[in-house]
Amino acid sequence: MRTVEWDPQTNQLNLIDQRLLPGQFQVYVCAEWQDVVTAICEMVVRGAPAIGAAAAFGVALAGLRSSAHSIVSLRLDLENAARTLAASRPTAVNLAWAIKKMMRIVEADAESADDLRQRLVDEAQRIADEDVKTNLRMAEVGAAVIADGDTILHHCNTGSLATVDWGTALGVIHLAHQQGKRVHVLVDETRPRLQGARLTAWELEQYGIPYEIISDGAAGHFLRRGQVQKVLFGADRVAANGDVANKVGTYMLALAAFSNKVPVYPVFPTSTVDLSLVNGDLIPIEERGAEEVLNIEINGARVTPAGAKARNPAFDVTPHALITALVTENGIAYPPFEENLARLVQGNPAKLRTL
Amino acid sequence: MRTVEWDPQTNQLNLIDQRLLPGQFQVYVCAEWQDVVTAICEMVVRGAPAIGAAAAFGVALAGLRSSAHSIVSLRLDLENAARTLAASRPTAVNLAWAIKKMMRIVEADAESADDLRQRLVDEAQRIADEDVKTNLRMAEVGAAVIADGDTILHHCNTGSLATVDWGTALGVIHLAHQQGKRVHVLVDETRPRLQGARLTAWELEQYGIPYEIISDGAAGHFLRRGQVQKVLFGADRVAANGDVANKVGTYMLALAAFSNKVPVYPVFPTSTVDLSLVNGDLIPIEERGAEEVLNIEINGARVTPAGAKARNPAFDVTPHALITALVTENGIAYPPFEENLARLVQGNPAKLRTL
Repeated sequence: MRTVEWDPQTNQLNLIDQRLLPGQFQVYVCAEWQDVVTAICEMVVRGAPAIGAAAAFGVALAGLRSSAHSIVSLRLDLENAARTLAASRPTAVNLAWAIKKMMRIVEADAESADDLRQRLVDEAQRIADEDVKTNLRMAEVGAAVIADGDTILHHCNTGSLATVDWGTALGVIHLAHQQGKRVHVLVDETRPRLQGARLTAWELEQYGIPYEIISDGAAGHFLRRGQVQKVLFGADRVAANGDVANKVGTYMLALAAFSNKVPVYPVFPTSTVDLSLVNGDLIPIEERGAEEVLNIEINGARVTPAGAKARNPAFDVTPHALITALVTENGIAYPPFEENLARLVQGNPAKLRTL
Repeated sequence: MRTVEWDPQTNQLNLIDQRLLPGQFQVYVCAEWQDVVTAICEMVVRGAPAIGAAAAFGVALAGLRSSAHSIVSLRLDLENAARTLAASRPTAVNLAWAIKKMMRIVEADAESADDLRQRLVDEAQRIADEDVKTNLRMAEVGAAVIADGDTILHHCNTGSLATVDWGTALGVIHLAHQQGKRVHVLVDETRPRLQGARLTAWELEQYGIPYEIISDGAAGHFLRRGQVQKVLFGADRVAANGDVANKVGTYMLALAAFSNKVPVYPVFPTSTVDLSLVNGDLIPIEERGAEEVLNIEINGARVTPAGAKARNPAFDVTPHALITALVTENGIAYPPFEENLARLVQGNPAKLRTL
């Protein structure tokens, strides 16, 4: 099944519950739009593209469950739901992007409330289907930079589970593998929620791609010793200048790669780009609960002392100066990023400039 | 009790079992020198200075338990034990340093086998007592660089538990706190064995020093945002040029600090310096078992998929170019490190040069 999948029989949204993987494969059913808010907040669904698609279906669910008879009162219910959904997580811009797309349908002409309801379901489904196609194009674009024999260092999870299907950075690795290139992946475990050790390792097992999990802090050792040829990761929001907000730890990884002349490629759909922000320092960074850092156990025992406190920024910003190129479904942007990224967002790859 | 404590009644070595902290405080009793080898290999005792002292007592134990009647045959038993003890962990040079000190006693004149046995116990005790004094001097030297109000980012555990008592980098922080300076510590959890989240947090709780645990990958976020004034850590081996081998993750931390103009201070006794190595690339880096990376649990469930593989380098090398100054019991070495570090090892701080 897809990570984010609409059931047209029951008019419910099914999500793969990513909190329980790889131990348990369980479907989290969203019968109400509020369930989608909970699913996003609690990271049942995660990954910028997957969150965007889930939120779109959340708006559709709000329409279907609304008791409104008129278009006007249905729109009021939809706007309320959209506001709450948009606020469920702050950093990934795909959430706002998807809801904006849905709101265009909300505000457009419709024949009746039921007609509007149907248009919303169709639009959410289009967003989800489009995500898969976008990812496949991104994989084709990105696989070109992968060479036979590469060891690729990868942060967080950017595979099928982070999107509706296929994935961003992991999609590139997956396609390169399918093309017959021998690739080896060093998987950053990605504390605190361990999306690498849990989800990326699980996906790579299924694809038959050789990998090894490493502590996030060990990446520098392998980079310094010349054992890594490429660093790949996803993105949650990319500013106009190419600064990338992504899962916490990405910045230190990119810095270590840059210092050792190992190329750094963020891979993301153009829906992740926020041209309204001139640089990454303007991207809001979510700080999550301390418990995510403190609840770690070894051999059945919690390791942190009673009363321990923690800080837990969920993302960080990687300055564009550390990045080799930005990989999108519309092509690869090399510096100057500001100009080339805008071209890719406009779907104008022919006009890319090189320095 | 001390982390490494000789019991003259029973002629046994008592170690605080650091694998069980902070959940359980339990003493690991070494009745035979082979128990000391196990304790070092399995990290019952850890931290370069603590390992050195434990190994010294290991040699003393080998003497006491040997059935040899003659000095010659006792020396054979001692040489055998010393070889095995020296090979128990490869990176920290304090182990080799302490055993070399003990071997000087082994090789020196003695009146009888029993006289030699007693001299070995005395020498090991001297090494342990000296470690505490050295740490206190180091704390005084280092506390001078700490300012009132500093937020200090700290990696791994370098406190009482990493030494016979008091600590290296954490000893500096502890003394600055006792001097009335308001300090706040961001504690790198230090995957995979979580010495920060387990041991440093536990020590800071006891000292009443405010702290917050962070994922290792989050350090860059706080450094980039200007929320850290100093970075402190210990060392397992320091090359002649000032390159520092320390717990894995230190290199990425130092790089992020350097890139954000935050001063970086390794704190270590001169027994950690290995002038025989011209640079850090010559320091042997221990790779430990994959299970240390893979055995992580959240809510009672192991998170890594069945069949997962891992790489586990226990240390990495921080190039001296990223380091502001090296703090030792004999003074602080600023660049040129090669010259100044040699002066400190010789106990000649008056001749330090500044660039």
